[in-house]
Amino acid sequence: MSAEPLQEMTRSKSRLRLWLRLLKTTGQIESALRRRLRDEHGTTLPRFDVMAALARHPEGLKMSDLSSYLRVSNGNVTGIVDRLTEDGLALRMAVKGDRRAQVARLTPAGHAAFNALAAEHEAWVDDLLGGVSEAEAQVLRDLLGKLTREGDAA
Amino acid sequence: MSAEPLQEMTRSKSRLRLWLRLLKTTGQIESALRRRLRDEHGTTLPRFDVMAALARHPEGLKMSDLSSYLRVSNGNVTGIVDRLTEDGLALRMAVKGDRRAQVARLTPAGHAAFNALAAEHEAWVDDLLGGVSEAEAQVLRDLLGKLTREGDAA
Repeated sequence: MSAEPLQEMTRSKSRLRLWLRLLKTTGQIESALRRRLRDEHGTTLPRFDVMAALARHPEGLKMSDLSSYLRVSNGNVTGIVDRLTEDGLALRMAVKGDRRAQVARLTPAGHAAFNALAAEHEAWVDDLLGGVSEAEAQVLRDLLGKLTREGDAA
Repeated sequence: MSAEPLQEMTRSKSRLRLWLRLLKTTGQIESALRRRLRDEHGTTLPRFDVMAALARHPEGLKMSDLSSYLRVSNGNVTGIVDRLTEDGLALRMAVKGDRRAQVARLTPAGHAAFNALAAEHEAWVDDLLGGVSEAEAQVLRDLLGKLTREGDAA
């Protein structure tokens, strides 16, 4: 019984180190992706994320639904969709039966631009995550999936 | 030779899935921590991060150095330190030999407040990351450390 508190302390310190490691790794990859999007395409990660969400919903997404897919705030999403619309890459359409609602969707030019960007993004990720083998990547995916126990971090 | 392009595609898709999994897991844990800091302590993750950085530097940190430890922008850091100062948890001091520079550091009350918060934060992380065993947590830490090849994502 005397070893119990020490063991508990060690376990929670070890989990804390894992969390700091997770934050650091994710932050490093995210920074590298931001830098490449900016330097090679003059664009931003939030704009890329908005295009990705719209690309997955060719029928269009309500602005309120769009922001739930993203980590950027609602106000930013509106600005990003405005810019995409000015650039001819997205458009807003009225929703049948709801005069106040609008959906945003990509134009054909928007889909083409996103597909080109997504292919490059995938190659960057492949490069940035290249430190582990395919088998290790699988182990990582499985363990990350187990990490947050159902419900706890939902 | 004919199988090569397919294999390449599969590998990069697999790495992309790993990256999306990493983002999702980190985001879930971060959201849960933000929620608990807000609901149980009326505070924010950026404020907690600023206090953590100051706690690790009892001699004081220049504002410019402080922001390099954090993910929040410089403007926010200034506001957070202002609020901590108003609350009696931090103070700003002149730097000897550099009349324009100031360092921020925690007051004794700030250290006490951070220590209490940090102990709870550690217990939350232990709880949130409770889906893996100690051995699995070690494997995760090692693989995350290997993931971003030296230099690529620095």
